Amino acid sequence: MNDPAKTATTAEPLHPLLAERWSPRAFDPEHQLTERQTTALLEAARWAPSAGNSQPWRFAVAHRGTPAHAGVLDALDRGNQVWAHAAAALIVVAAQSVTADGATRPWAAYDTGQAVAHLSVQAQHDGLAVHQMGGFDRGRIATLLVGDGTLTPLTVVAVGRRVDAGRLDETLAARERATRQRLPITDLLLSVRPAPVPDRS
Amino acid sequence: MNDPAKTATTAEPLHPLLAERWSPRAFDPEHQLTERQTTALLEAARWAPSAGNSQPWRFAVAHRGTPAHAGVLDALDRGNQVWAHAAAALIVVAAQSVTADGATRPWAAYDTGQAVAHLSVQAQHDGLAVHQMGGFDRGRIATLLVGDGTLTPLTVVAVGRRVDAGRLDETLAARERATRQRLPITDLLLSVRPAPVPDRS
Repeated sequence: MNDPAKTATTAEPLHPLLAERWSPRAFDPEHQLTERQTTALLEAARWAPSAGNSQPWRFAVAHRGTPAHAGVLDALDRGNQVWAHAAAALIVVAAQSVTADGATRPWAAYDTGQAVAHLSVQAQHDGLAVHQMGGFDRGRIATLLVGDGTLTPLTVVAVGRRVDAGRLDETLAARERATRQRLPITDLLLSVRPAPVPDRS
Repeated sequence: MNDPAKTATTAEPLHPLLAERWSPRAFDPEHQLTERQTTALLEAARWAPSAGNSQPWRFAVAHRGTPAHAGVLDALDRGNQVWAHAAAALIVVAAQSVTADGATRPWAAYDTGQAVAHLSVQAQHDGLAVHQMGGFDRGRIATLLVGDGTLTPLTVVAVGRRVDAGRLDETLAARERATRQRLPITDLLLSVRPAPVPDRS
C-alpha cells in the first residue's frame, strides 16, 4: 500500500522502510494488532541503543476496546481523538528520566525517541502505520500510568492499519493527501569552527 | 559482516536492519565516507517524523583529516577518543531546542533521537556502523558550532566501516565481543489504571 505521493524525495535513495514511512490519520477501525505484532514492535524498541545502555523507554500498550484504551483516548487533544480512536492501539511512551536513586538521565528523551523510531521501522516492515502524538493532557496521562514517579510521558503512539483517506472528514483527508515537506539538507547543516591555534607569542 | 553473537535475541523476529545493528568501537582508520553515503545518512535523518513537523535536528559533519574533525575529536572524553578517532566521520548532533523567536520545543531531544535512529538504520543498510556518544565536553562542542544560540548539543556520532575487534586494545576488544544485553520486555511495560467511574451517588 505504498503511496508514491507520500514517498520521501531525496538526493540519494533511502531504504524503502524509511522513504515510505509517514504518519497517517486514516486507520482501519476493525483492525486489531496480533500479540505477535505487538511483541515485534516492543522488541524493536527494546533493542534500540541508549546512553550507557540505560534503556530509559517505557510503554503502556492500550488496545482498542479495553478500559485502558478509553482512558488514554480521553486524555488526547480533541484534534487527535477524532482520528486516533480508530487505530488498533494507543501506546503511551514515557521516559524514565530519573533513576530510582534520583539521578537524572540527560539522554532519556533522546533515547526514547530512538526506541520509538525503531518501533516505527518495524511497524512499517510489518505493514502497520504509526502516528506519534504530542497533543495530550500530560497530567492526566501521568495519573493513568502505574509507575513510581520517575516517568515523563512524552508521546502517545497510534498504531494500526492504514486505510484510504476517504474515511476522514474533508479537512483531514486533504492533510492526508498533501505532499510531505521537509527543510532542505542545507538548513540542517551546522559548520564547525576550526580549533583555535595555540598562541605561540 | 553480520555477527551472530551481536544479533538481537527476540521473541519475534525483527527486520535484520534492526536486529543486526549495534554500536562497535573498532573502525577502519583508512575508510572514508563518500559524498553520496553522507548525503544518504542526512536524508534518512531529514525524513524522520517530528512534533508538528518542526524538524529540530541539526548536524555538523566532520570528516577524518579535516580541521573540524580535530576540534570535535579533541572535545570527546578520553575513553571515546581512543577508538572514535578511527571512524570516517564524527557527526555532531544538536537539537534546536528553542525557536528563533524564543519558544521552547518540548520534543526537540526526542525528535532528534528519532532522526539519528533513522540515520543509523540507513547506515546499517549501507554497510556502515554507527556509535553514538554522550561523553564529550558540551561547552566546548557548543563553542565549536557556528549557530545562533538556540542549539543544544546532544550526541557525537561516529560513523564508519566496522573492522575486527583485534584492532582494539584488550579491554575494548572484550567489550566489542561481549553479548548484547537488554532488559526483558516485561520491565519496559507500564500498566494503565482504568479510567475512574463517575460518581453517581
